[in-house]
Amino acid sequence: MIKKEKIPKVTIHRMAVYLQVLEDLDREGEDVISSSKLAELCGVNPSQIRKDLAYFGEFGVRGVGYFIKDLIGSIKHFLGLDHVWNCAIVGIGNLGRAILRHKGLPYKGFRIVGAFDCDPFKIGEKVGELEIICTRRLKEKAKELKIEIAIITTPPERAQRAANHIVEAGIKAIVNFAPARISVPEDVIVDYVDFSTHLIYLSFNLARTKGKNI
Amino acid sequence: MIKKEKIPKVTIHRMAVYLQVLEDLDREGEDVISSSKLAELCGVNPSQIRKDLAYFGEFGVRGVGYFIKDLIGSIKHFLGLDHVWNCAIVGIGNLGRAILRHKGLPYKGFRIVGAFDCDPFKIGEKVGELEIICTRRLKEKAKELKIEIAIITTPPERAQRAANHIVEAGIKAIVNFAPARISVPEDVIVDYVDFSTHLIYLSFNLARTKGKNI
Repeated sequence: MIKKEKIPKVTIHRMAVYLQVLEDLDREGEDVISSSKLAELCGVNPSQIRKDLAYFGEFGVRGVGYFIKDLIGSIKHFLGLDHVWNCAIVGIGNLGRAILRHKGLPYKGFRIVGAFDCDPFKIGEKVGELEIICTRRLKEKAKELKIEIAIITTPPERAQRAANHIVEAGIKAIVNFAPARISVPEDVIVDYVDFSTHLIYLSFNLARTKGKNI
Repeated sequence: MIKKEKIPKVTIHRMAVYLQVLEDLDREGEDVISSSKLAELCGVNPSQIRKDLAYFGEFGVRGVGYFIKDLIGSIKHFLGLDHVWNCAIVGIGNLGRAILRHKGLPYKGFRIVGAFDCDPFKIGEKVGELEIICTRRLKEKAKELKIEIAIITTPPERAQRAANHIVEAGIKAIVNFAPARISVPEDVIVDYVDFSTHLIYLSFNLARTKGKNI
């Protein structure tokens, strides 16, 4: 039973990391892992993992640790990944095309079912399996295609307009790749993607190697 | 003074989040923030923030909190962001072009100075300010352009070959967007980008709204 309190975004991102680490261990044939070892592999305090998992249940056996397959099943259920989510891409530029051609998403539980753009020269063009549809038809298509998640990959100046179409279509979840803040009603969830986080990890390590940040 | 122990990747990712939150507060005109409020905004335990910041110094004043501008400066220095890093993109497909055209990176301290691809039909083509160069010339160009970070945006089956060229060129840091593991010598740092983390955050919230994961 999930506690009713608000669960912070970074907790969910950590949970995605736990899932990835546990799935790697499962593929390597491991059955059980101690909470301290799991914490180390995930790069967090053991108390943080315990606190995070406590959001949705009692896990782990004292003196033994966690049963990997059970924990994977529970985390997947918790994250809503025991369901396939229909997604739409809005903005078919370079990034939109790259995501449309991404092979890994369906495997993770996300299926792209619609590609939208407002450029009349792109409408009707086929990208992979999908034909680009005018963004103004998003509302009508969202119902037909049962779209639950929208991914914004427009230029920053068009992100808000894309968000407006998405909201009007009744879609309640947005991943925004455009480097622009968008405003949406309170019941719509937005997650922002920022590539630079990954570059920052490298920056830190390079500076450290060179003794620049010590 | 940074402690000499290994600092986990997720600590650095958290530090990038702290920086982003602090920069937002600074822009809003705030001077000081309590550690509990900062923890709440960043979605972590106050003890986690204290532990993370303890890697590189003593921060915060008991009963007052953190001085925002000071902490921003210290975190930037710690992350190596008081330096501009020269980056190369290897693999000029849709994703490579999207990153080349990304306006936000120079502002964050990352400058793309080289675009490489092994496709003879692409070599010489101009993308933005840069001309695509044959990946086989990476070694020679890395010195000339002082490339410190390489970003792999090839298809998965070409990621290892790209990594080999990067390693041979003496570049010690790689962000890998290709959904494929790569092997590199121990002194080369790799960070993998996985878009699906963001989709998982939405999946969790949608499932919760629908009562599916409770």
